Amino acid sequence: MPRTNPEARDRLIATAADMLQRRGMNATSVRDLAKEAKAPLGSTYHYFPGGKQQVVEEAVQYAGNLVASRLAIELRAGPAEGLRAFLDLWRTTVLRSEFRAGCPVLAVSAEEPASEDAMSTLSVAAAVFSEWERLLAASLVEHGVPPETAHEVATLIVASVEGSVVLCRAKRSIEPLDRIGRQLEAVIRGAINQA
Amino acid sequence: MPRTNPEARDRLIATAADMLQRRGMNATSVRDLAKEAKAPLGSTYHYFPGGKQQVVEEAVQYAGNLVASRLAIELRAGPAEGLRAFLDLWRTTVLRSEFRAGCPVLAVSAEEPASEDAMSTLSVAAAVFSEWERLLAASLVEHGVPPETAHEVATLIVASVEGSVVLCRAKRSIEPLDRIGRQLEAVIRGAINQA
Repeated sequence: MPRTNPEARDRLIATAADMLQRRGMNATSVRDLAKEAKAPLGSTYHYFPGGKQQVVEEAVQYAGNLVASRLAIELRAGPAEGLRAFLDLWRTTVLRSEFRAGCPVLAVSAEEPASEDAMSTLSVAAAVFSEWERLLAASLVEHGVPPETAHEVATLIVASVEGSVVLCRAKRSIEPLDRIGRQLEAVIRGAINQA
Repeated sequence: MPRTNPEARDRLIATAADMLQRRGMNATSVRDLAKEAKAPLGSTYHYFPGGKQQVVEEAVQYAGNLVASRLAIELRAGPAEGLRAFLDLWRTTVLRSEFRAGCPVLAVSAEEPASEDAMSTLSVAAAVFSEWERLLAASLVEHGVPPETAHEVATLIVASVEGSVVLCRAKRSIEPLDRIGRQLEAVIRGAINQA
């Protein structure tokens, strides 16, 4: 049995997140993951005894945490600044991959769960989306927006950014993300001014 | 060679669209399509000599046209009415499938094209998104909204509806769609009032 190496394990998770955001869940296998990460298949099963489902769930959680921690930091300057950082994250992913990668959390949510077990993957994705919404809504509330409106605006931000990344991939253009960015800034301004 | 039967062909396309919106592109095969539509595999290849790629592209176009024609009719009453009909379409898809189905156009756009040929599938998806945006923007312009703002609002509507359908599937709740609906109505009202 290979010895535990946290770095190797983390690299496998990051590689899985990258594969998910490019190919989707069905086209991601533990075998391909091992090949992609240049890791022995045996060590991959050693790190993830739960197999593909465990890898996928940890990859979704990893991607979710990365975005949430960046968002939490940038939101300290205000909701509009947080939005800009959120948009920037996705712009970088889409442009660096030449429109071939999007969001791993969306990837696992857009495919029918193949079994009852797979429902737990959806729960991980749902919790990630909710955490991003919670951070955005809390920042709006701090700036005087009533909680219900703040929650609606936060959902609009997460939903439209996720959707626009898909539009960018289809159109092979960053324009959809830029266009919704301008509208979302106006929505945030409006919500704060009405507060 | 089986004789051409337009109804059988249409049923195959509708079934393919349903499979795409549930399982995604990678998990959809011509063999499964034949089984799902209770059609002989030979007749499936007869109708679609281009194989999976042809089926997928026709299914995306079919779904795109269904939505576009409904949207065009409902937008005659105004942008807010068009939005409501657009939201209703997706609400019905998500609820009827018990959160297992979403949008076939998103499904093909969120998976990396496996070959240069597959780029043409992305182009079909891009054209469908653009047509929905064009219809919404034209209706806003008719109601006095400047073209650039109208286009931004239209992209926000399409992106956020697509994204919220994915959020609904992850959370197994229709709330994200209802929440963005309320915000989008306010955005439309604001754009028209400022005009």
